[in-house]
Amino acid sequence: MAITAGDVKALRDRTGAGMMDCKAALAQAEGDVDKAVEILRVKGQASAAKRAGRGTDEGVVSAYIHANDKVGAMVEVQCETDFVARNEDFKSFAYQVALHVAATGPRVVSAEDIAEDERDAERRVFEQKAREEGKPDNVLERIVEGQLSKWAKEVALLEQPHVNTDKHEGKTIEEMRGELAAKTGENVRIARFAYFRVGEE
Amino acid sequence: MAITAGDVKALRDRTGAGMMDCKAALAQAEGDVDKAVEILRVKGQASAAKRAGRGTDEGVVSAYIHANDKVGAMVEVQCETDFVARNEDFKSFAYQVALHVAATGPRVVSAEDIAEDERDAERRVFEQKAREEGKPDNVLERIVEGQLSKWAKEVALLEQPHVNTDKHEGKTIEEMRGELAAKTGENVRIARFAYFRVGEE
Repeated sequence: MAITAGDVKALRDRTGAGMMDCKAALAQAEGDVDKAVEILRVKGQASAAKRAGRGTDEGVVSAYIHANDKVGAMVEVQCETDFVARNEDFKSFAYQVALHVAATGPRVVSAEDIAEDERDAERRVFEQKAREEGKPDNVLERIVEGQLSKWAKEVALLEQPHVNTDKHEGKTIEEMRGELAAKTGENVRIARFAYFRVGEE
Repeated sequence: MAITAGDVKALRDRTGAGMMDCKAALAQAEGDVDKAVEILRVKGQASAAKRAGRGTDEGVVSAYIHANDKVGAMVEVQCETDFVARNEDFKSFAYQVALHVAATGPRVVSAEDIAEDERDAERRVFEQKAREEGKPDNVLERIVEGQLSKWAKEVALLEQPHVNTDKHEGKTIEEMRGELAAKTGENVRIARFAYFRVGEE
């Protein structure tokens, strides 16, 4: 059973325990991460430190509730230092992303984050549609892949032009992110978002 | 007379009364559900089951970002009509829940929402700890179940006393919810929440 550095890091992130403890726990658990978490917890080396957020990542959480109180979004945007996290441009970007998410309700941050089975399901739909439209077999795959890639862009936050096109000159969220990263000199990352619409649980 | 979670849930479904009220009524009725319904109706906590099972597709989304911008929470609270959703008491409750979630970071809305495998994992940790502390077998199960039930209460939003104990007189979120339901005459339901802390993805 080979234990990779990635496994150790994942376990450290989850538990906040030290590297050697994590290695030992993984060895004992024969690589099963969930089991290793349990072993560390029994030993008291991973307390509720799960929540302690050991990551050195800085950043802000920002939220936007639509005026009707029926739709809301919350985002976490990360940077490297607390200095940048307190910067007005950085905070404003986070707020603009929250506002955008509330308006468009994306599914994922990046197109790569779409789960394989969700992508497959979508592919089957496009395939069936193309077949029903009588598209010949030799072009079917190309058509379907084109539609799939278009769809992935539509549901991915980073690929979407900011909903306030006038203010943001039609730039995508990714373009805005890139500009902010250049301006602050730090890596800027949209870590996650939540989107709630009443009754749409 | 052991009162099961299933009994409580059945009573809640029939009456729309809060979890703690249902538990108390069942205890008083020695487990007789029909009798418990009567007890709740006398107390006015079950308005002739009118509230039971009524659709809650209205409501609000509310958010709270901690002053340091490092922690945020967003909640969806549902009710039955847009009229109540616009009510100040209702909106204020949703906001108070968001504030509370940002402060305590619960894992689930209700203890019943804890996934079976997560509960089992926790049980194994408590078991092993109890074994290592040399607890005898004949009391081990009781100890573990006690710890498990305590843990489930700690991580469940509804069971937590509101973090602002002075303002809310030590009431749990579930008690506050029940009072609001009684006051508005509508079924009030915390549908979901999100809790973000920077770097804790």
